[in-house]
Amino acid sequence: MEIACLDLEGVLVPEIWIGVAEHTGIDALRATTRDIPDYDVLMRQRLRLLEEHGLGVDEIQQVIAGMAPLEGAKDFLDWLKARFQVIILSDTFYEFSHPLMRQLDFPALFCHRLEIGNGRITGYRLRQKDPKRQSVKALHALNFRVIAAGDSYNDTTMLEEADAGILFRAPANVIEAFPQYPLVTTFEELRDQFRRASERSIPE
Amino acid sequence: MEIACLDLEGVLVPEIWIGVAEHTGIDALRATTRDIPDYDVLMRQRLRLLEEHGLGVDEIQQVIAGMAPLEGAKDFLDWLKARFQVIILSDTFYEFSHPLMRQLDFPALFCHRLEIGNGRITGYRLRQKDPKRQSVKALHALNFRVIAAGDSYNDTTMLEEADAGILFRAPANVIEAFPQYPLVTTFEELRDQFRRASERSIPE
Repeated sequence: MEIACLDLEGVLVPEIWIGVAEHTGIDALRATTRDIPDYDVLMRQRLRLLEEHGLGVDEIQQVIAGMAPLEGAKDFLDWLKARFQVIILSDTFYEFSHPLMRQLDFPALFCHRLEIGNGRITGYRLRQKDPKRQSVKALHALNFRVIAAGDSYNDTTMLEEADAGILFRAPANVIEAFPQYPLVTTFEELRDQFRRASERSIPE
Repeated sequence: MEIACLDLEGVLVPEIWIGVAEHTGIDALRATTRDIPDYDVLMRQRLRLLEEHGLGVDEIQQVIAGMAPLEGAKDFLDWLKARFQVIILSDTFYEFSHPLMRQLDFPALFCHRLEIGNGRITGYRLRQKDPKRQSVKALHALNFRVIAAGDSYNDTTMLEEADAGILFRAPANVIEAFPQYPLVTTFEELRDQFRRASERSIPE
């Protein structure tokens, strides 16, 4: 009995903070876990930048509502859901991801929540430490076999804990640090990797 | 951060074995966990009946492919997915539920697998003991709050373990044995119960 765990940003949808950076012109918001592996450090920087520029949650949600899933992502997800149980493991926030998840028909998503007061993002609540690894552990406790795919540093504990891990469109520094995972760049190749990693015979 | 756990048969889709009983005319296949709470006893009886009547997996899958979700179930599920992360917890088998799950756009489903050899169902593999309770425990370990709804005896450990439990279209013996849970019979009432059970303000 197998579950497919997928990262969200960089795999199914664009990097949300980069979209916000482009729309607002605040270049420093382009940083992701690819650049700053410590997520707390990264988030404190993001919230400080928003505060400095007087940006509230409404403005940011408007930007995100104008974004779309990556080309081919919806077809890939539909293919995957018909063959595996799919859970999206992400370090994004429900408040941000909602308009993008709607375009993907709301697959199950485990992520975090923002704290919002008077329209300002006052903080954030991480569900737990190392949430992607903990999610795979919880699925193992339910006797599921887990196949996981992601692109960033914050995915690598998930890949390590999973029964099979796949890198999708990973940057050079992640590829170099984690040569043990197969690396693919198209959804067709990603489908193929999931079929290979499965213990069952998966139809095309 | 909240997850909605739903039973499948009797909540979103008809009782699958009753459908098989109606199509094949084998009345004894109408028994469900409503009648025989011990699932292993029930399954051994079902497989013995199939074997006695020479029924293979293809015939049964054909019957199930002709079934449809309960009226209003898809709309309810779409409503729920836009407001909660949804995981279906069921004691059915992936091989049986697949054509019905397709009609529901494949929400994440935790259930069991059949063992099949030469077209015959030779046995079944339960993922674990008390799987619905274990699933809620695993979600709690991930710091989710869980709201659960079901109709049968095999749902009651899930309702007990959850932060809030709801009975939907339950039979008289379950209602009598578990008076502590709110009881509803329409999807409109079920939506209302999920809104009440949430710690957040859930939009209509």
